[in-house]
Amino acid sequence: MLFGGIEAGGTKFICAVGSGPDDLRATVRIPTTSPDETIERSIDFFHQQQTIHGRLAAMGIASFGPIDLRIDSPSYGFITTTPKPGWANTDFANRISRSLEIPVGFDTDVNAAALAEWRWGAGRGLGAVLYLTVGTGIGGGALVDGQPLHGLLHPEMGHIRIPHDRERDPYPGACPYHGDCLEGLACGPALEQRWGQPASRLPVDHPTWALEAEYLSLALVNFTCTLSPERIILGGGVLEQRQLFPLIHHRLRELLADYVQSPRTTSELDKYVVPPGLGKDSGVLGAIALAQRAANAEVG
Amino acid sequence: MLFGGIEAGGTKFICAVGSGPDDLRATVRIPTTSPDETIERSIDFFHQQQTIHGRLAAMGIASFGPIDLRIDSPSYGFITTTPKPGWANTDFANRISRSLEIPVGFDTDVNAAALAEWRWGAGRGLGAVLYLTVGTGIGGGALVDGQPLHGLLHPEMGHIRIPHDRERDPYPGACPYHGDCLEGLACGPALEQRWGQPASRLPVDHPTWALEAEYLSLALVNFTCTLSPERIILGGGVLEQRQLFPLIHHRLRELLADYVQSPRTTSELDKYVVPPGLGKDSGVLGAIALAQRAANAEVG
Repeated sequence: MLFGGIEAGGTKFICAVGSGPDDLRATVRIPTTSPDETIERSIDFFHQQQTIHGRLAAMGIASFGPIDLRIDSPSYGFITTTPKPGWANTDFANRISRSLEIPVGFDTDVNAAALAEWRWGAGRGLGAVLYLTVGTGIGGGALVDGQPLHGLLHPEMGHIRIPHDRERDPYPGACPYHGDCLEGLACGPALEQRWGQPASRLPVDHPTWALEAEYLSLALVNFTCTLSPERIILGGGVLEQRQLFPLIHHRLRELLADYVQSPRTTSELDKYVVPPGLGKDSGVLGAIALAQRAANAEVG
Repeated sequence: MLFGGIEAGGTKFICAVGSGPDDLRATVRIPTTSPDETIERSIDFFHQQQTIHGRLAAMGIASFGPIDLRIDSPSYGFITTTPKPGWANTDFANRISRSLEIPVGFDTDVNAAALAEWRWGAGRGLGAVLYLTVGTGIGGGALVDGQPLHGLLHPEMGHIRIPHDRERDPYPGACPYHGDCLEGLACGPALEQRWGQPASRLPVDHPTWALEAEYLSLALVNFTCTLSPERIILGGGVLEQRQLFPLIHHRLRELLADYVQSPRTTSELDKYVVPPGLGKDSGVLGAIALAQRAANAEVG
């Protein structure tokens, strides 16, 4: 059985057909313009793929948010209150489902990435997994016993508040809602604004990395104490700076101060906080995993 | 069917026999001394109750922690690394189970309280509920689709880090591990140390309440963004100061800044952050609820 997946991001859609990390038959990138244009181009791609591979069993959408995940809501499957121009209140899942006449699984990009990592990557078989992405924004998805955490709406982990020492770091924060929340202090654009150049151009011993490790470690303390995950997977553009990992392992251990007494949170932090096992494919593979769930739900 | 429940706290054990909030047949308080003495006195109570009411169907234990909840662990059912003298590495659940020859449900005091509130109290029927207690310490329990959140060990929500403005509040924090973590800043003993007298003696317009509301609101922002609960239930001795609730509703709304767009997190915060529906009985009723689950699991 083959599945379709859309990783719907604010700058591009990645559409793929396949059944898992070793079986991605076709992938395409579509720039995110208007909802009509972007969604229609995605649908065209899947129609075309069906002429080659035959009928897809289901579609999965791993979407930027906020989105409506409440099955009984009239706007289920919509992108809701995004500030992204033109995209507020966009019917997404239902439109895909109607056009392709196919069941659709729908969740946040980060919940989907957590699902893919749990299924095939660095979180394989664990009971509780957190996936955190640090890039243009910061977002987190959590899986508990294989089920994505939703709740009232869905988590918005980038917007937790953490200690901010303004003497060490006078930067006021980039978040238009909260100023110096986690995303405001530690997302890619915050690094660029703080230093006047893209963080990727800063040398590996630049003070930005210790500061970034400080903020991410404070956030990981909070996620550890709140969710008690068995593993934390850190993805996104900023974490491609792999020098951050040992800095985070060191600082997180200091901050936890051996209070949570597990090897994972003391001596084996390098097994607790890890890069994605699926590299940059966590998101689109998460969409494929959502499609597989939708197909299984359909069958019964 | 009747059940036994133990709410095991650091200063007292509350033991009860019953089947729910309208049917608590007997309750006893036992001071927490040594594990041997305290657990034996609890067992004696339940033996005695069985001569009156007949055989109990199961026992539930809602325990202070940290505790081992991993079913496949050799120390499952133990209190593990507590600093409480004499109680580290105490076999608790197995001892109760052997002595009474009965199935035992075992979880943290706060997960059990969340369970009771979900079953009979302020969280009835909701998909995701957070119970936070603020007293001698601070702890949180979360229920997702009726299942207590465990993960690697279990949450330790009192130990998240939040912004601490040392100009407004120079108090360094009471936590021996982390200094000014949430518990360090906002637990009952921190209030007493900060002002030199028990908080319950301070007038309702004393600045401690605005400061306490600030810290608890910052914490609730973080729990909201991480867990996305449908309701947050605030219990414990400090929250008996009911003037805190409107202060928290006001400040939490300011801090969330309408980013999480749900009535619960904007205009209806008084339905989002609420006192326990079961009052001070959440814990011991949680133990009864754990017993009912253990009995059901036994039956299959």
